[in-house]
Amino acid sequence: MQVLLDEQHVQLSPGTGNAMIGQYKVEFTPIGRRLEVPGDVSLLAAAQHAGADLAAVCGGAGICGTCQVRLIKGRLSAVTEVETETLTADQLNAGYRLACQAYPAGDVRIEIPPESMPAMQRLQVDGQDRLFDLDPAVVPLDLEIPLPANTDLRSDFTRVDQEVKKMGLSPLQADLAGITRLSEMLRAQDWKVRLAVRPGHEAAILVATLPVGTPLYGLAVDMGSTKLALYLVDLASGITAAKTGVMNPQIAFGEDIVSRIAFANQGIENQTLLQTRLVETLNQAITGMCTEAGIARSQVVDAVLVGNTAMHHFFCRLPVRQLGAAPYVPAVAEPLDILAGEVGLALADGALLHTPANIAGYIGGDHTSALLSIYPEVKDQRVVLVDIGTNTEISLIDRGRIFSCSTASGPAFEGAHIKDGMRASAGAIEKVRIEDGNVHVTTIGRVPAVGICGTGILSGIAEMLDAHIIDRRGAMDREHERVRLANNNSEFVLVEAGDSGVGRDIVITRKDVHEIQLAKSAIRTGINVLLQTAGIGAEEVDRWIIAGAFGTFLDLSSAVRIGMFPDVPLERYHQVGNAAGAGAKMMLLSKKNRAAACQLAGEVNYIELTIYPGFTDSFIQSMYFSQEKSPRK
Amino acid sequence: MQVLLDEQHVQLSPGTGNAMIGQYKVEFTPIGRRLEVPGDVSLLAAAQHAGADLAAVCGGAGICGTCQVRLIKGRLSAVTEVETETLTADQLNAGYRLACQAYPAGDVRIEIPPESMPAMQRLQVDGQDRLFDLDPAVVPLDLEIPLPANTDLRSDFTRVDQEVKKMGLSPLQADLAGITRLSEMLRAQDWKVRLAVRPGHEAAILVATLPVGTPLYGLAVDMGSTKLALYLVDLASGITAAKTGVMNPQIAFGEDIVSRIAFANQGIENQTLLQTRLVETLNQAITGMCTEAGIARSQVVDAVLVGNTAMHHFFCRLPVRQLGAAPYVPAVAEPLDILAGEVGLALADGALLHTPANIAGYIGGDHTSALLSIYPEVKDQRVVLVDIGTNTEISLIDRGRIFSCSTASGPAFEGAHIKDGMRASAGAIEKVRIEDGNVHVTTIGRVPAVGICGTGILSGIAEMLDAHIIDRRGAMDREHERVRLANNNSEFVLVEAGDSGVGRDIVITRKDVHEIQLAKSAIRTGINVLLQTAGIGAEEVDRWIIAGAFGTFLDLSSAVRIGMFPDVPLERYHQVGNAAGAGAKMMLLSKKNRAAACQLAGEVNYIELTIYPGFTDSFIQSMYFSQEKSPRK
Repeated sequence: MQVLLDEQHVQLSPGTGNAMIGQYKVEFTPIGRRLEVPGDVSLLAAAQHAGADLAAVCGGAGICGTCQVRLIKGRLSAVTEVETETLTADQLNAGYRLACQAYPAGDVRIEIPPESMPAMQRLQVDGQDRLFDLDPAVVPLDLEIPLPANTDLRSDFTRVDQEVKKMGLSPLQADLAGITRLSEMLRAQDWKVRLAVRPGHEAAILVATLPVGTPLYGLAVDMGSTKLALYLVDLASGITAAKTGVMNPQIAFGEDIVSRIAFANQGIENQTLLQTRLVETLNQAITGMCTEAGIARSQVVDAVLVGNTAMHHFFCRLPVRQLGAAPYVPAVAEPLDILAGEVGLALADGALLHTPANIAGYIGGDHTSALLSIYPEVKDQRVVLVDIGTNTEISLIDRGRIFSCSTASGPAFEGAHIKDGMRASAGAIEKVRIEDGNVHVTTIGRVPAVGICGTGILSGIAEMLDAHIIDRRGAMDREHERVRLANNNSEFVLVEAGDSGVGRDIVITRKDVHEIQLAKSAIRTGINVLLQTAGIGAEEVDRWIIAGAFGTFLDLSSAVRIGMFPDVPLERYHQVGNAAGAGAKMMLLSKKNRAAACQLAGEVNYIELTIYPGFTDSFIQSMYFSQEKSPRK
Repeated sequence: MQVLLDEQHVQLSPGTGNAMIGQYKVEFTPIGRRLEVPGDVSLLAAAQHAGADLAAVCGGAGICGTCQVRLIKGRLSAVTEVETETLTADQLNAGYRLACQAYPAGDVRIEIPPESMPAMQRLQVDGQDRLFDLDPAVVPLDLEIPLPANTDLRSDFTRVDQEVKKMGLSPLQADLAGITRLSEMLRAQDWKVRLAVRPGHEAAILVATLPVGTPLYGLAVDMGSTKLALYLVDLASGITAAKTGVMNPQIAFGEDIVSRIAFANQGIENQTLLQTRLVETLNQAITGMCTEAGIARSQVVDAVLVGNTAMHHFFCRLPVRQLGAAPYVPAVAEPLDILAGEVGLALADGALLHTPANIAGYIGGDHTSALLSIYPEVKDQRVVLVDIGTNTEISLIDRGRIFSCSTASGPAFEGAHIKDGMRASAGAIEKVRIEDGNVHVTTIGRVPAVGICGTGILSGIAEMLDAHIIDRRGAMDREHERVRLANNNSEFVLVEAGDSGVGRDIVITRKDVHEIQLAKSAIRTGINVLLQTAGIGAEEVDRWIIAGAFGTFLDLSSAVRIGMFPDVPLERYHQVGNAAGAGAKMMLLSKKNRAAACQLAGEVNYIELTIYPGFTDSFIQSMYFSQEKSPRK
């Protein structure tokens, strides 16, 4: 079967307190999902329940404007103030709405435009109504087992095993908890049970025994250094039943991976702490998702977890000391299938956790996963994939060849190490415009500014360059009226105290500029080294795919202006969101995708930047800003 | 390689305080083991260290007389009083000695006569110098691993896996603890390690990583309802490095299996208690053996555990409720390979515990194991195997066909439920002779009588039958001068208070006789049903093999006299000791033996006695004693 069923019907019950509100049919095109919802369910919530995977970076708070949809047929609730501020009049006239703001007022047909689809769909679907054949590692078997009798003294396990073999599977294999549960369920369920089984060459592994017909779910997790993204997916339909994002609790032990490795190296109890805190947080998030989807943990029979190599080793409680010193070799690079109980994750008793292959010490299974999410569509093209994070992984796909590297871009894009930096939340300056010496800022939520997030500082620096407030070395024009000296550090005043939400000036300092120069140089150097290795020019690359949370928000023209990315036509850039998470879901839903990921990781030509000839020169060169103006101007 | 090396040399260091005692060469024939020992090491200890597996039921206390050996060449210490009491003058003249009493006084050659060999050797070796080819499931691989470098960034696991594959093995597979240990040991041991690996079709499982050359050991365990027998075996030579027997701690929760199942059924915490107490006791015993052999637990890389189905399920924490009610089907009958950690057994991190196939709810892997220990030698013959315990398993091998049943013989043979009953230890009456109205008793240790053990009561009843003190129904002659009435129960005085070691009469009561009638009838009925099923007569059976601890001590003529066994020539009976334990060792040392055991279990035609037509009649019939005199008379 295929992941998207045209006839898929999901029924949502009306929210409490709104029992009078009607029930409407909502159809999402072009992916062909239909469901019935009460009128107090937003189009975003409806899309999420239908598994339509609409981009909604702010989580439906009306802040990000990424969840644009278009009304094709039927009637929606009235346009809100948030929508008039975010959408242009042309867009509103064409039927564009924000899915988080709009509610059905009758049966409707809604188009999800390609730019509103996250990573996987945007690249792979583009109007098609299927993604890939569903081929999950764990499958349901509904069985009716002959009862024991004096004339049939076979053991519980034997009689089940023989029914399984009749279906053409290998001999059943189970751990002791699984056999116990099987014996108990056979008697509790009158010898009619659903097995969740992981078929294999030598054995079919018993994962869970459930009442006949119980739906099976899987878990996909992207373990970022900063954020953990979790998806609970119906294995029969491929529909995402729940998703959530939570902070990585390891931040308390070190903002970046290198500090966490240092912390872990202080003693085994530290490493244990890093692991247990991580698993506790994952378990809480899983509980929340199960509650939301109304299912039991025993129904979660499979999982795929991706993360950078250090996160992978932390999660698996594998040694990380060696990741802290050259030549940075991982303890294990192979894909693993780990018993959930072995690491403390509370899923079905016999559930196995799949982690795809790590590519190197600083380029992990999350990048393998991100590559997987785009590779089938782009393998014959020339494509650069940049997955921006505290560590940025970059791959160049050159018509079948793959070159990859990893570069320490640091947390500046997350607002860290920036004087007035903050995460992307309400009050953060996300856009700066400097016109005729006047500075205009736009904040998230349109409230008075309280700080600057990553996109804001990029935008600010690009504008300062165009306005010659900083030169190509990053030095500030101390003669400029908004530039002043504080603690021997020049700084540019973006918002004056009176206009800010915090009662003090909000500034960009020379040091902030330097931090961004380091970060953008790290990324650009990685890109340059890969292009150089493959012997092709930036203009020969067909597509530039920018992944990761920051990559989704980032203003491309600013990024090009400051030289983080090469100056090629902006339409070649594609912002795809969490590509690693999308790849994890693909692996969850298809064994073929797992095999493909393993093969991809094996095909990568890993380039260790620190020993690349001319790396230092290239890095220093990339620290400079270019002399051209912003591409949009 | 083969299990018995003719050139095998084991060196024992002199005991402390006897540094002046010489060092002598001891050679054991016919099995071809040689070693060098100081003069203060008994022949029994020497044989044990050489892995010669001499029968020594009392553990070397000079009580049982089972460790008879014969001096072929050289000089031994002087004959002791214990030896003159136990051995006949003819035996002493022929060079017979008790191995526990004799010490080398120069280089010696010692013959171990067949009757002094326990189970496996007695049946299988009989003068041969080999048992079977060593083919353990876990093998050592000494590897030198290329170091990581900037030009070789393979993960630790990848580089080891690739060396393993070069040796023709399947891809390496390990759990997370195993990978961690591997990474640590590679660095600690300068990239030269010994892997303990379990080769397989799809994967070679990593069990342990050790310094190069570290010897690998395996554990064989027979988990009886009453006693646990453990053997620590060198996997390279097949030599038993240590062995021990401990009481099953579950006795505290029920003397027999049925009461323990009832206890477990009261709640999951009870079942958990039964399991944890068992595993604690096993772990303590393993610690003791490791200390004795001077090895670390991480060197114990494989294990085979056998037990009846209930013991198997208790150990595995599998449900036992269904073993307490008809049709008594086990939760699992298949052979299992369980991670030691899954049940709490402390061996090498990645060690797997093998349990052979259970045959039915009341005929477990211990009987499979006992069958294995004799089958290769007897498969073309007609053989009855009786493994006596609280539950007695009986198999009839009829030239390739196997019929098996299980019968509840109860604990009477262990001295339980008998008025003056006791276990076989010092002061227990082990033999009774009634001549001309006079009663002569022999006690273990030749001390005043304190009670009667199983062999004693059998011997007593046989003599009482011959002396017409009881009739064939078991009723006592109340006119006999030593028979009296106490609490409405007639009893026969074996030892009067003045002659006993406890200051009171030691008696056999009518009720005691009834207990023995029940027990012997259970066994005899089982034998009769199997013979009837196969359509052969008792006289057509070539060999009667009596296994189990009680079976080893048992006076055969008494057993035949009371009708427990058919009246066939006594030389057809063979007492083989712990056949289940011997089979467990065979499986530990050879994968082929594991496969053979699995096949054997599958070939068994299981006969459920309780539903066998005419079972009750046959049982009642077998309660009677026969009218013939004892066969020896």
